[in-house]
Amino acid sequence: MVTTVTEPVKTIAIQGDQASFHDIATAKLFGDSGRVYCDTFAGTFRALAEDRADYAVVAIENSLYGSINEVYDLLLKHEFSIVAETYLRIEQCLIGFPGTKLEEIEAVYSHPVALAQCEEFLETVLPEASRNEAHDTAGSVAYIAEQDTPRFAAIASAEAAALYGMDVLKHSIETNKENYTRFVVLSKTRTSVFSGVANKSTLVVTTTHQPGALYDALGVFAKQGINLSKLQSRPIIGKAWHYMFYIDIAAASGALTSAKHELEAQGCTVTILGSYKSGIEPS
Amino acid sequence: MVTTVTEPVKTIAIQGDQASFHDIATAKLFGDSGRVYCDTFAGTFRALAEDRADYAVVAIENSLYGSINEVYDLLLKHEFSIVAETYLRIEQCLIGFPGTKLEEIEAVYSHPVALAQCEEFLETVLPEASRNEAHDTAGSVAYIAEQDTPRFAAIASAEAAALYGMDVLKHSIETNKENYTRFVVLSKTRTSVFSGVANKSTLVVTTTHQPGALYDALGVFAKQGINLSKLQSRPIIGKAWHYMFYIDIAAASGALTSAKHELEAQGCTVTILGSYKSGIEPS
Repeated sequence: MVTTVTEPVKTIAIQGDQASFHDIATAKLFGDSGRVYCDTFAGTFRALAEDRADYAVVAIENSLYGSINEVYDLLLKHEFSIVAETYLRIEQCLIGFPGTKLEEIEAVYSHPVALAQCEEFLETVLPEASRNEAHDTAGSVAYIAEQDTPRFAAIASAEAAALYGMDVLKHSIETNKENYTRFVVLSKTRTSVFSGVANKSTLVVTTTHQPGALYDALGVFAKQGINLSKLQSRPIIGKAWHYMFYIDIAAASGALTSAKHELEAQGCTVTILGSYKSGIEPS
Repeated sequence: MVTTVTEPVKTIAIQGDQASFHDIATAKLFGDSGRVYCDTFAGTFRALAEDRADYAVVAIENSLYGSINEVYDLLLKHEFSIVAETYLRIEQCLIGFPGTKLEEIEAVYSHPVALAQCEEFLETVLPEASRNEAHDTAGSVAYIAEQDTPRFAAIASAEAAALYGMDVLKHSIETNKENYTRFVVLSKTRTSVFSGVANKSTLVVTTTHQPGALYDALGVFAKQGINLSKLQSRPIIGKAWHYMFYIDIAAASGALTSAKHELEAQGCTVTILGSYKSGIEPS
């Protein structure tokens, strides 16, 4: 169950173009609210910082690729709150001109990650076609639509095919079907348009450099019976080989506050990035 | 203290060109042994798998960038052993034609990560110069050397400048000086040419999906007084939102074996990627 919007929202900053996976995830959360399309994650954060958008939606993690480190680092630079999350199944489609036969295709365009995810299909079905890297999956569909020839194909969402009047020549061509991306919604304030009681929190914990410090920190959660759904280490810039930990926990409000106090009593530094209602995790 | 080689070695596979940071790290460990230069990390692993090299040297972690996920994933695909590690201070230099004045420079070439690391310098000193992404830092020096004009500059190691007869116009132009990379040496077998008693191990631990499972696993090390120098989560491919943990511990042989048994008794799966003598960590 996706948390629902209870009042109108103006504009959402996303990385990518119309019909990109960011755009599809944003539509799940905000419907057809306005978009501020950004080229980069840094640009997306900037759009929110400069009030050109009310919220930002950013991918934070993919089930095959892992954490998107750049987004974790940007979360710490900006003092935004995570106010919601959602999960999207990433289904890659081979897209071409209506009526294109596979044997006509000479070149395939897409984002490098999408090309890599479909490598097995390309090797087997289109071994002779060249692979061409593009800035964005949906953008590569816009590009082949302009070229007006069945010789070019793209890999992107079915939504991108529909947007540009192209055909899905083959659905679900990704090698691994367990391909999900987790997106979070960022706001300048802790309050948001989302209803639902927060039951999940994301925090950044820096432990002391003592042996066993991380074990002691995790003990705070274990003793309270709070489950961790994610633990991601990141280097602390300027302190080589010292790490901080991004932790997702199944707790909010009271339990979160008391865990924070206990961690601080151990000498940890704790930053709460947000409390929100957990999205449904694909099993 | 770098562990030393006790017998001649034939060839080492590395990612990158002559005078790249991989090449410099490899020279620290193996002197002027032969090299197999590879375009990608996957190609470097392949060179070792296909016996085209005796060892491979790969960057695994950078103090600013964090873990190199692709290398962690490749480590699990191949059954190689980590037999040594070393740390290298990454000092980026502005490199140009001998006698070039900064105001003559119109274009700067380098690997995108190196360009990003020097962005502050470029903004301040060369705001008008275009930034151009290249495949490799050292390769961009080779490129500007060919162009034979003071209008082009590159960012790379001082070693690359020397190799191609170029001048270091400015040393240490990276924004953050705490810029170190950790490299590991991979072998097809556990025995290696390196002397020194192993005191560090890298293992991959998959816990059960029970609440507190990671806490219990870390307890095995804490109770034995074994220090963790690194903990990195990675997704398990095909099992969305289940993670495995790459862990570096200050233990080898007996302590490692008993920790492995205890973890397996908890239901964890444990793969030992190697035991080796720890390199000196820059403080």
